[in-house]
Amino acid sequence: MSSELPALYSLGIIGAGQIARMTHQAAVKLGITPRLLAEESDDSAALAAPDAVYSHPDAIAMFAESCEIITLEHERIDIGLLERLEEGGVCIRPGTRTLRAAFDKMHQRRVLLNRGFPVPAFAELRGPDDLMDFARKFNFPVVIKSIRSGRPGQRSVWIVETETEAMRVMSEQGHRELMAEDYQPIVKELVALVVRRPGGNCRNYPLAEVIQQEGAVHEIRSPAAVGHRVAAEAKELATRIANELEAVGVLAVELFLTTKGLVVNELAARPHNAGHVTIEGSPTSQFENHVRAVLDLPLGPTRSVAPATVTVNVIGGHDGIDPADHLGEALAVEGSHVHLYGKRPAPGSKLGHVTAMGDDLDQAREMARRAEAALMGRRHW
Amino acid sequence: MSSELPALYSLGIIGAGQIARMTHQAAVKLGITPRLLAEESDDSAALAAPDAVYSHPDAIAMFAESCEIITLEHERIDIGLLERLEEGGVCIRPGTRTLRAAFDKMHQRRVLLNRGFPVPAFAELRGPDDLMDFARKFNFPVVIKSIRSGRPGQRSVWIVETETEAMRVMSEQGHRELMAEDYQPIVKELVALVVRRPGGNCRNYPLAEVIQQEGAVHEIRSPAAVGHRVAAEAKELATRIANELEAVGVLAVELFLTTKGLVVNELAARPHNAGHVTIEGSPTSQFENHVRAVLDLPLGPTRSVAPATVTVNVIGGHDGIDPADHLGEALAVEGSHVHLYGKRPAPGSKLGHVTAMGDDLDQAREMARRAEAALMGRRHW
Repeated sequence: MSSELPALYSLGIIGAGQIARMTHQAAVKLGITPRLLAEESDDSAALAAPDAVYSHPDAIAMFAESCEIITLEHERIDIGLLERLEEGGVCIRPGTRTLRAAFDKMHQRRVLLNRGFPVPAFAELRGPDDLMDFARKFNFPVVIKSIRSGRPGQRSVWIVETETEAMRVMSEQGHRELMAEDYQPIVKELVALVVRRPGGNCRNYPLAEVIQQEGAVHEIRSPAAVGHRVAAEAKELATRIANELEAVGVLAVELFLTTKGLVVNELAARPHNAGHVTIEGSPTSQFENHVRAVLDLPLGPTRSVAPATVTVNVIGGHDGIDPADHLGEALAVEGSHVHLYGKRPAPGSKLGHVTAMGDDLDQAREMARRAEAALMGRRHW
Repeated sequence: MSSELPALYSLGIIGAGQIARMTHQAAVKLGITPRLLAEESDDSAALAAPDAVYSHPDAIAMFAESCEIITLEHERIDIGLLERLEEGGVCIRPGTRTLRAAFDKMHQRRVLLNRGFPVPAFAELRGPDDLMDFARKFNFPVVIKSIRSGRPGQRSVWIVETETEAMRVMSEQGHRELMAEDYQPIVKELVALVVRRPGGNCRNYPLAEVIQQEGAVHEIRSPAAVGHRVAAEAKELATRIANELEAVGVLAVELFLTTKGLVVNELAARPHNAGHVTIEGSPTSQFENHVRAVLDLPLGPTRSVAPATVTVNVIGGHDGIDPADHLGEALAVEGSHVHLYGKRPAPGSKLGHVTAMGDDLDQAREMARRAEAALMGRRHW
């Protein structure tokens, strides 16, 4: 019997990683079957959803024809192509005005600076002279960044302390467009998630704090342990940026809390890793609210349902351990919420996450960490 | 590019209705992609899951070969075929000892009576004489039941007040195996959900109360408004029955609270409509715990997370209204959790459900009813 899947999907998602997997689930709950544009047949979301389409040169344009509305789960798309599709009448949400700011970090810095948002000093690096000019003005350390996002796991940020280091990075990354930024004295890394409907209606999730480990986000704590004033300022910044860019769906505003105040680090115009806390931690997850916003449906409540929620990422190690082999040990950690993405283990790859709620952050963190340790075959002390 | 879906699935689900759809989602969260055996390509779960297989005469045996463990979402399967598969080494959970009690209501009554569980007086109806004997002993009204479950929406229970009525039902339903039961003076209809692992480890969900409307479950309230003694007795009954039948996965024990105490009405050896409250109402849903139990993984917490949770079913009417067309109005009911199953609207068909939590049952019910009314294009007063 042939499939009776629709000829025209109400929603298409470009990308089929874990963000798409969880967005797909949220849509299915609402009775909607989104179509996916995957890169590989073993992409996380392609394993769990029917009728995925796979990348080839004309894939996006053909895919766009099969969907009423398109959204994206990653930034590895030619923005020019999306702009042409949008001009041709394809409904892309968020629109390319928002996407360009998320895809092109130089463009993002210019837009944010023009509108008076707090950003570090920055400059494009067309060659070694630009770097030396920048370092003379702002001193080392300097942050070198790739202007466009890399593939998952590909490094895109370097903090360089000397001219020699800077030249080495620029020579090794010579094939990529680079920019320099003034190094920030970071106190905390925060993520302000806002979700916005086409008409401008916005909701904000509680401010989250992210903890890095070996260059990757290891832990997400919600709410962030900051004062009310910082939390309010972060929320206001995120909402103003979403309105300024006319964002639709989730906009994740990554912020640095520095000794001099809040500075915008990055923008992601899609559900964000830091928002995984919202699956259990809020009445409506970032994934469901992204789907609602993109389809221009009323947004759901975004408050915290517990005093503290902590998510710990499950990241592949060099030992090749597969967390799926340790699912039983992790599920034995009473009260932890285990999510695995069905991916083949690879070093540095996000294979899943664990969320726990508690009366305070320590309690929630302890539980989440214990389940994560169990998944990775470590004993947690 | 061809699909890289596995040759051997760790879990197969016979059936692809909404129970399978929600079970599939719970498994995907844990990193598992179950395979589905659907009846039609537009079955609720087949729309949202990849690689479903469709029924044909040899489908079940072939399907069993592609899965390590099989579970079921409905009772419309030849129990003899399942018994032969199980004898041949196929791992079916729950096993056929449990399934026979769920599929064959005469067998169920005999088993429960033998073990001392409270059941109404019953008798098989091989012809009109059996009915008349039964009515002479227990008086009218008499309950006539089909021994085997019908298709979704097919009536299987009749309460007859007179001999004429009884003869009409028996003649109309002559093609089905029938039984008689003594009519119970019902105070409340309750559902005790228990989930059990192969080794015997059990967890109980809070006792739920179901409210019927026009012969279908309209509303589920958790916890049931009964005294502690009744709740404790229901829990104990469910656990004892699960142990007696060596059930694996969710066992739903439908109970009547009568003026004379609790009586077992029906058994379902799978996630149950009354357990939809557990998706938002408990830390671990019945679907996730069913998957965990069937795969022999540790069970998750089953307590209530709110003082009161109410689920209202969204049932197709004769007006042909499609709740998907009113999703926006329903999502505007702040705090309601809307689930749609992607099914084509048909009178009497379960198209979705809405859950709401509150400080008391009235508050939760009001919110859930308002969202359900919005989905069905009714104004809620």
